[in-house]
Amino acid sequence: MEPILAANADLAWMLAAFVFVLLMFPGLALYYGGMMGARNVLNMMTMVMVTLGITSVLYVLYGYGLVSGPSVNDWGLIGNPLDYIGLGANMADDGSGSTQVLYFAAWFILFAAITVAIVASGAAGRMKFSAWMVFAPIWLTLVYFPVAHWVFAADGDGISGGFLLNDIGVHDYAGGTAVHMNSGVAALALALVLGARRKRMERPHNVPMALLGGGILWFGWFGFNGSCALGASFLTQVVILNTLLAGSAGILGFAVIEKWREGHVTSLGAITGAVAGLVGITPAANTMTPLGALAVGLLAAGVVAFLLSFKSRMKVDDTLDAFAVHGVGGIVGTLCIVLFASESAPAGVTGILFGGDISILWKELAGIVITCTYSFVMTWLIAKGLDKVMTLRVDEETEVTGLDSTIHAETAYEIPAAGVGHAPGLGAGVPLRNGLNGPVERVPTSS
Amino acid sequence: MEPILAANADLAWMLAAFVFVLLMFPGLALYYGGMMGARNVLNMMTMVMVTLGITSVLYVLYGYGLVSGPSVNDWGLIGNPLDYIGLGANMADDGSGSTQVLYFAAWFILFAAITVAIVASGAAGRMKFSAWMVFAPIWLTLVYFPVAHWVFAADGDGISGGFLLNDIGVHDYAGGTAVHMNSGVAALALALVLGARRKRMERPHNVPMALLGGGILWFGWFGFNGSCALGASFLTQVVILNTLLAGSAGILGFAVIEKWREGHVTSLGAITGAVAGLVGITPAANTMTPLGALAVGLLAAGVVAFLLSFKSRMKVDDTLDAFAVHGVGGIVGTLCIVLFASESAPAGVTGILFGGDISILWKELAGIVITCTYSFVMTWLIAKGLDKVMTLRVDEETEVTGLDSTIHAETAYEIPAAGVGHAPGLGAGVPLRNGLNGPVERVPTSS
Amino acid sequence: MEPILAANADLAWMLAAFVFVLLMFPGLALYYGGMMGARNVLNMMTMVMVTLGITSVLYVLYGYGLVSGPSVNDWGLIGNPLDYIGLGANMADDGSGSTQVLYFAAWFILFAAITVAIVASGAAGRMKFSAWMVFAPIWLTLVYFPVAHWVFAADGDGISGGFLLNDIGVHDYAGGTAVHMNSGVAALALALVLGARRKRMERPHNVPMALLGGGILWFGWFGFNGSCALGASFLTQVVILNTLLAGSAGILGFAVIEKWREGHVTSLGAITGAVAGLVGITPAANTMTPLGALAVGLLAAGVVAFLLSFKSRMKVDDTLDAFAVHGVGGIVGTLCIVLFASESAPAGVTGILFGGDISILWKELAGIVITCTYSFVMTWLIAKGLDKVMTLRVDEETEVTGLDSTIHAETAYEIPAAGVGHAPGLGAGVPLRNGLNGPVERVPTSS
Repeated sequence: MEPILAANADLAWMLAAFVFVLLMFPGLALYYGGMMGARNVLNMMTMVMVTLGITSVLYVLYGYGLVSGPSVNDWGLIGNPLDYIGLGANMADDGSGSTQVLYFAAWFILFAAITVAIVASGAAGRMKFSAWMVFAPIWLTLVYFPVAHWVFAADGDGISGGFLLNDIGVHDYAGGTAVHMNSGVAALALALVLGARRKRMERPHNVPMALLGGGILWFGWFGFNGSCALGASFLTQVVILNTLLAGSAGILGFAVIEKWREGHVTSLGAITGAVAGLVGITPAANTMTPLGALAVGLLAAGVVAFLLSFKSRMKVDDTLDAFAVHGVGGIVGTLCIVLFASESAPAGVTGILFGGDISILWKELAGIVITCTYSFVMTWLIAKGLDKVMTLRVDEETEVTGLDSTIHAETAYEIPAAGVGHAPGLGAGVPLRNGLNGPVERVPTSS
Repeated sequence: MEPILAANADLAWMLAAFVFVLLMFPGLALYYGGMMGARNVLNMMTMVMVTLGITSVLYVLYGYGLVSGPSVNDWGLIGNPLDYIGLGANMADDGSGSTQVLYFAAWFILFAAITVAIVASGAAGRMKFSAWMVFAPIWLTLVYFPVAHWVFAADGDGISGGFLLNDIGVHDYAGGTAVHMNSGVAALALALVLGARRKRMERPHNVPMALLGGGILWFGWFGFNGSCALGASFLTQVVILNTLLAGSAGILGFAVIEKWREGHVTSLGAITGAVAGLVGITPAANTMTPLGALAVGLLAAGVVAFLLSFKSRMKVDDTLDAFAVHGVGGIVGTLCIVLFASESAPAGVTGILFGGDISILWKELAGIVITCTYSFVMTWLIAKGLDKVMTLRVDEETEVTGLDSTIHAETAYEIPAAGVGHAPGLGAGVPLRNGLNGPVERVPTSS
Repeated sequence: MEPILAANADLAWMLAAFVFVLLMFPGLALYYGGMMGARNVLNMMTMVMVTLGITSVLYVLYGYGLVSGPSVNDWGLIGNPLDYIGLGANMADDGSGSTQVLYFAAWFILFAAITVAIVASGAAGRMKFSAWMVFAPIWLTLVYFPVAHWVFAADGDGISGGFLLNDIGVHDYAGGTAVHMNSGVAALALALVLGARRKRMERPHNVPMALLGGGILWFGWFGFNGSCALGASFLTQVVILNTLLAGSAGILGFAVIEKWREGHVTSLGAITGAVAGLVGITPAANTMTPLGALAVGLLAAGVVAFLLSFKSRMKVDDTLDAFAVHGVGGIVGTLCIVLFASESAPAGVTGILFGGDISILWKELAGIVITCTYSFVMTWLIAKGLDKVMTLRVDEETEVTGLDSTIHAETAYEIPAAGVGHAPGLGAGVPLRNGLNGPVERVPTSS
C-alpha cells in the first residue's frame, strides 16, 4: 500500500513538470521570433506551432511505439509500434497510481516537438512553409524516433531497449544526445542545404521578446530536467539545484568571453549563455556537485561564446545558433561528465579527473559521434532529397520582402512610432499620464 | 491513515494546477490586447485585470455560497450563500489533508473571473470603462453564479446541487457550459447591444503578443482541465494527454480550413485553432481516447475556422471572436461527446456512433440550449437596462481617438521606429552589436 | 513510514513552487524593462539577469551558511558558513523523502536574487554596468545575507538562528522584512547616492510588457508565499487564497485612489496595485481571514497609490517605485498584522483591534525599524564608498544617449512604424489578411 502513495506524490510532481515543459513552446517561439528581423517573425513562430501539431498526431499514430516499444529483433535500433498504434489499448488504469503510458505519451510528445522546433531555427527566414510541413514529419520519423529509441528506451522485463543506452551504456541524463546534439546538428545540416540568408547579419527585431523567450525556456527546463527524475525525490532536488546553477553560471561565462572578445556584455549574450549552460547540464544534471554544475555552466557558455565570436567569419549560416548552443553545448556538457562527474552525486559516475575509469570517455564519445553523424547525414539526405522534389527555399523576392507578408499574409506589428502622435486626433506631445508614474499635465476624462 | 496521504499528494497537484490557471489572466490580457489596434490595448488589458479584482471580492462576499452552497429549496437553481458569507466560518482545518473550502474558493474565483474576462472581449474598443465596472458585477451575480451552480454543484450528503448536473445529468467535464458557451454567448449579446466598432476590421497591432497570450492560455488550460480531476490520478493523466492533443490538432484543423478558404496559413489562425481545440476538449476531456481527442480538436477548430471565413459578411461584430471560439467551440466539443465518446475513457460515456443510448443527445442538447438561452437573454437584458441608465458606449470622438489615451490617459508604446536612429544622439545606421550575433563594427565602450 | 509519504507529497508541491518562483526573474525584467524608456530597456533586463548569476555563485560559495548556518556565538547576527562552503558536504540523501539542504539552497538563491534585483531598479537608467557588477555581490554579502539570517534562520536542535525571528519574535510569514522592506529601502538609498535621472519623468516605453511582467510576478508569488508553508497543507490553501485576494484587492485599491487623485484608472496603476497588495500580504498571509486579506490588499495598494500621487513633487528619484511598493507596501502589510490579524488563521496571531496583546506592536516595529535602518545605512555606505573608488554613475552623454547602445552595444527594437510599409518592397497600405480576422483583400500566395 505504501509504495502506491509514494507513487501518487511522484505523479503530482510529474504532472506539474509536464505543464512546465509545455510553456517551452511559447518560449521557443519568442526566443527565435525575437531574434529574427521584423519581416520574418510570424513565419518562425508558426513553424514552432505547427511542429507541435504534427508531432502530436504522429506520436499518437505510431511514434510512441517506435520510441518506447520493444526493440525490433532486440537490435536496439527501433521500437515496434504495433501495440501502441493510436494508444487506444492503453486506456485502462493499471492501478499503480503512478505515471502510465498515457502520461508518457504526452511527455514524450513535448520532448520530440521541442527537438523538431529547434531544427526549424536552422531554416529561419528562407524555407517554404509548405516544405517545412513535409520536412518535419519525415525528419521526426527517420531521425528523431530512432535516436530517441537508442537513448530513452531502457531494457525491461524481457524487453530490449535502445542500443546506446543499454548496450554501449552512454550516460545521458535528460537528452543531451537525442534532443540537443541531434537538433543542433540537424539545424546545421538543414541550414547548409538551404544556403545562407541573403541578409545574414540582420539585427534582432525585438530583444526583450527574445529575453522573455529564453527566460521561459529556463522555467520549462526545470520541468524537462526535473521530470527525468521520474518523481519527487532527492534526485529531483539535486537536478533542480544543478539546473539553476548551470543556467546562472552560463550567464556569467558568456559575459566574460563576450567582454573579452567584443568589449561589451550584451543582454542577448546573457540569455544565450543561460541557455548554453542549461544545454550543458542536461546530460549531466545527476552527476554533478553544485560546484561541478557551476563549472558545467561556465564552460558550456564560455565555449559557445568563444565559438560565436568567429561567427561572422564562418561561411555556414547557423541561423539562430542552434548548432553552437545545442550541438556544441550538448557536447561540452557530455565531456564535463567524462572529466569531472562526482561519485557523490546521485548517478554515482566518476569523472576521469577524479580517478574514474577511462571507459567512460569511449562510451560518451560513442554517444556523441553516433548521434551527430546519424543526425547530420540523415538530415542532409532528407533535405537534399526534398529539395529535388519541391525546392525547399523561397524565391529571392519572397525572401527580400519577408516571409510574414508573402507566405502568411500577415505582419507582426501595427505600432505607431514614438513622438509622432499615438492616435489619429492626438498630435505629437499630447500629455498622457501613464498612471501615477508620469508627468503631471492632465488630459480630459471621458468616462 | 492511507487516504489522508493520498489526499495530500492530490493536494500537491491541485495547488500547482491552481497556480497554472492564474497565469491565464496575463494570457487573456495579451491574447486580446494583441489582437486590438494600438490605441485600445491598455483598455482591454485593464478590463481583464479589474475583472479579477471584482470577482475576488464578490466571491468572498457571497459568490461562493451562490455557486457551491446547498440549493435553495432543493430546486437546483441557486445556492444558499448564508453559511459562506466572507468565508470566515471556514478557517478550521478539517484534518483531511485534502482540498477544502478555502482552496475551492480560490480555484472557483479563477474560473469565474476567466468567464467574465472572455465576456469583456465582446465589448472591446467601445465600452465605457465605468460601464464595465458596473456591468461586470451584475453579470457575475445574475448570470455566472446561477449557471455555475447548475453545472458545478454536485449533490452531496443530503445536500442538493444544481439541476443541470444532477437532475438532467449533463456531462460537462470542465466547464463547456458555464465557462465557454456562457461567456461566448454573453460576449455576443453584449456586442449586439453595443453595436459594431466604427473601424471593425482593424488589424491586430501586435501578433507576437497575441501568440504569447494564446500559448500561456494553453499552459493554464492544463491547470484548468487537470484540476477538474480533483487530484493526481489516472484520470488526470488522460485529461492532460487529451488536452495536449486537442490543442495540437486544433492548430492543424484551423490551418487546413484557412488554407482552403483563404489561401494562407496564418500565425493568428494557428493560435486561434489551438484555443478552439482546447475549448472543444474542455467538456469532453474525460470521455475520449487519444484518437478521439485529436478528432475533437480538428473538428472544433475546423468548424470555428469555417465560420470565421464568413466573418466579414456578418453584421454582428463578435469583436475578438469569443462567440465563435468559446460559444461554437464549446458546442462542437459537447456534440463530440454525443457522437463519439469512448466507453474505455475514464468517464465511461458511450457516444451514439459507438452504440451509446440516444438519451445522451437530449441531455447534452438540454445543457446547450438552457445555458445559451439563459446567458443570451439575461446578458441582453442587463446590457440594455444599463444602457438606458448610463449609456454603455463611448462617444464617437473617444472611439476614433482610442480608449487608451482618452479613458486611461496612457498609451501602450513609446518605441522609436526602425531605421530612424534609436536614441537622441545616435543617427540612423549607427553600428550596434547585439551581442555575438550581430555585425562586426564596433561602437565605443562606455563602461 | 507514514510521515515519509506525507513528506514526499510536500516535496512535490515544494518543487513546483520553486519553479514558479524562477519565473519571477523574467517577470521582474519585463516589469522594470517595460517601465523604462526605450533606450534603457536592455540595461535594466541585463542587470536582473546577471544578478541571478552572481547570487547563485555566492550562495554556493558561502551564502548558504551565512544565512542558514548556526549563528556565530549564538548571537543571532550571522550564520557560520564553514560546513556549507560549496555545498559538497550535502550530497547524501538523508532518506526523509522531504526537502533537504540542496533544495533549500536552490530556493533561497531565488529569494536572495529577487531581493537584489529589486534593488537594481533604484539604479535604473544611470548606473555603470561594471559598478553594478561590483555593488551587487557586496550588497548581497553585507546586507542581504545578515538580514536573511535574522529573519529566516529558526532555532533548531541546539542550534541558534537569527535574533529577529527567535529572540524578538517578529512575525514575518514570507519575507516582508528581509525581501521587501530591505530591497525597497536599499533601492531608495542607492537612488539617493546616484542622484535623480536627468529625464526623470520619462514615459514607460512598453506598458503591455510591464503588465505581463507584473502578471508573471503574481504567478510566481504563489510559489513564493506558497512555498513558505514548507509543504502541501491546510496552511498552504489559506496562503494561496489570501495571496489571490490581496493582489485582486490591490488592483481595486489603487484604482480608487488613482481615480480620486488623478481622474483616471490606468493599466499601470492596476498592476502596481496588484504588486503592492502582494507585497502587503507577504508577511501576513498566514494571519488573515479572507476578508482580512482583502483589507490588506486594499490598504497596501491604497497607501502606495496615495504616496505616489505626490511623486512629482518629491526630490528623490525612487526610480521604479521600489521604495513605495516594496518598502511602504511591506510596512503597511506588517502593520496590518498588528492591527487585525485573526486568531482563527493558521498562525493564531491576534491583532490589537481584535483584543490582541500590545506586545505585537513593539515586536513588529522592532522588525521594521531594525531592518530598514540597517538596510538604508549599509546600502548608503556601500554605495558612497564604491562611488569614491570607481564612480557609480555614467557620464552625461551616455545617460542622454541611453545605456543600451552605449554600454551594451545593442538596442531593444528594430520595428517598422505602422503605416509606412512593413517591409522593403511593400508600400504603405498593402493589404494583409492577418488570418480570418482581417480585411478581405488578398495578396498573392508564394508557398
